[in-house]
Amino acid sequence: MPQGDAEAAKVAVIGLGSMGYGMATSLARKGLAVTGTDVRAETVARFAAEHGTGAATPAEAAAGADILVVVVVNAEQTRQVLFGENGALAAAPPGAVVVSCATLAPALARELAGETEARGYLYLDAPISGGAQRAAEGALTILASGTAEAFAKARPALDAMAGKLYELGADVGTGSSFKIVNQLLAGVHIAAACEAMALAAKLGLDLAKVYEVITASAGNSWMFENRMPHVLDGDYRPRSAVDIFVKDLGIVSDISRSERLPAPIAASALQMFLMTSAAGMGRDDDASVAKLYAKIAGLKLPGGD
Amino acid sequence: MPQGDAEAAKVAVIGLGSMGYGMATSLARKGLAVTGTDVRAETVARFAAEHGTGAATPAEAAAGADILVVVVVNAEQTRQVLFGENGALAAAPPGAVVVSCATLAPALARELAGETEARGYLYLDAPISGGAQRAAEGALTILASGTAEAFAKARPALDAMAGKLYELGADVGTGSSFKIVNQLLAGVHIAAACEAMALAAKLGLDLAKVYEVITASAGNSWMFENRMPHVLDGDYRPRSAVDIFVKDLGIVSDISRSERLPAPIAASALQMFLMTSAAGMGRDDDASVAKLYAKIAGLKLPGGD
Repeated sequence: MPQGDAEAAKVAVIGLGSMGYGMATSLARKGLAVTGTDVRAETVARFAAEHGTGAATPAEAAAGADILVVVVVNAEQTRQVLFGENGALAAAPPGAVVVSCATLAPALARELAGETEARGYLYLDAPISGGAQRAAEGALTILASGTAEAFAKARPALDAMAGKLYELGADVGTGSSFKIVNQLLAGVHIAAACEAMALAAKLGLDLAKVYEVITASAGNSWMFENRMPHVLDGDYRPRSAVDIFVKDLGIVSDISRSERLPAPIAASALQMFLMTSAAGMGRDDDASVAKLYAKIAGLKLPGGD
Repeated sequence: MPQGDAEAAKVAVIGLGSMGYGMATSLARKGLAVTGTDVRAETVARFAAEHGTGAATPAEAAAGADILVVVVVNAEQTRQVLFGENGALAAAPPGAVVVSCATLAPALARELAGETEARGYLYLDAPISGGAQRAAEGALTILASGTAEAFAKARPALDAMAGKLYELGADVGTGSSFKIVNQLLAGVHIAAACEAMALAAKLGLDLAKVYEVITASAGNSWMFENRMPHVLDGDYRPRSAVDIFVKDLGIVSDISRSERLPAPIAASALQMFLMTSAAGMGRDDDASVAKLYAKIAGLKLPGGD
């Protein structure tokens, strides 16, 4: 990639949430010309002041951009920012590449890619994993699939955002499929961790000791190790919210039905996230599932009432 | 511990299965005087030839022993080898310590400890984790609770068998409670791993690549990493059998009901192990749950028909 300012790739980052803001920051730090946009004007203003340029709409951000990094919550928003009113593809130069980072059903990713390509653009199916901190460090895991042309065009942005880039083939939908398999496991592991901690509390065990023993035993998972400190600290400020797994395990559930593959473990976990959301904790940290078990069983967890 | 042969602790190992045989071997290697017994006479003969002394019954093994390591499958067998016909406690010298290693419901561990102590013996609640290889290396994780006297008396054997010994307090039942919490997670993670691999196969993904990506991602678990190579290799020879988790998640289910703590994730996982056992795979490797998903969904996994 040329390093001179005049030749640096121009990148629009659409969606400056906890992931998108960090990714936009990483892109700017690596010398790319970044324009950020978001529905929250104050976030756009903050990004413009700190790292780059702000834009009021996806169309405004996309004007002149080589690469459109779309980091919104779901398929509906992805469709909206690309094809809706003031959407990016009304303004992006022909041949620009859409780097689609939301977790989508593979079939929807293929549908969006088809519509994008029909308008003369490239599309990379590129869901992300790793959390806000690694987004800000340019150290995300990216599970990408798409044509060689799409990879080539997106390369400067991928290099700036990824700690680990998996190139999973030419077919759009493969990246999304890998992400869905990961989310099945991640969601089940969070719910199971919360269920296990609730059982431990019910049995009167020292929860800090449980954390120490389990993280050194065969019952460990990445999610147990990462999320259960939130339960030990009674700190449910959202790093990643309950409703994200209502959405992602919902996609698993949809695929499970359409593909005729029973997925009872994922289905149980979905119900736990749904109950937690229904109890008013949808925007809290996903470890709040532990609070739901505590509420049901009359348990006291750290920080609880 | 004295190292002279004349003063080495005498240990009876009751149960020479995949775990017990390795533990008895570790004890002998550390210089303890080990007598092994098992219902399979040929296993006893092999142990006697290779590592120590064989005995035909628990009573015969326990005669003169300081430490009785009980490594049988479940509570019924533990009760039988201690208190049944030719049981160890009919012959062990007063003050000997029972080191109970099977996964038991905490209430049952307390019951067995009460009966053991009423006869003038010590009892250590000492479930184990780590698999046959670590048993043979003297590198098990032991989750132990019991009186200071029980720990002191059992110490030479614990030191010889454990890579990591957790001393979890004076109350019998605490060790078992920790083990049950671990087994809830371990069982759920195996079933979820199999469900995720089945979904990946249904979506047409390269399963070796799935293993590579997941083990480097937030969806990873100790069990995914440890068991899924069996699926990739199509090798379901039992390292740990499906029926072990029918039993252990059955204990979780019993406790969940008696304690009035709903545990829907563990309940779903139990049903998957039960279905796999019902389909004729109870004595196969616990990763065989993946074969059940494949059978239901008409999928082809490596090594499958």
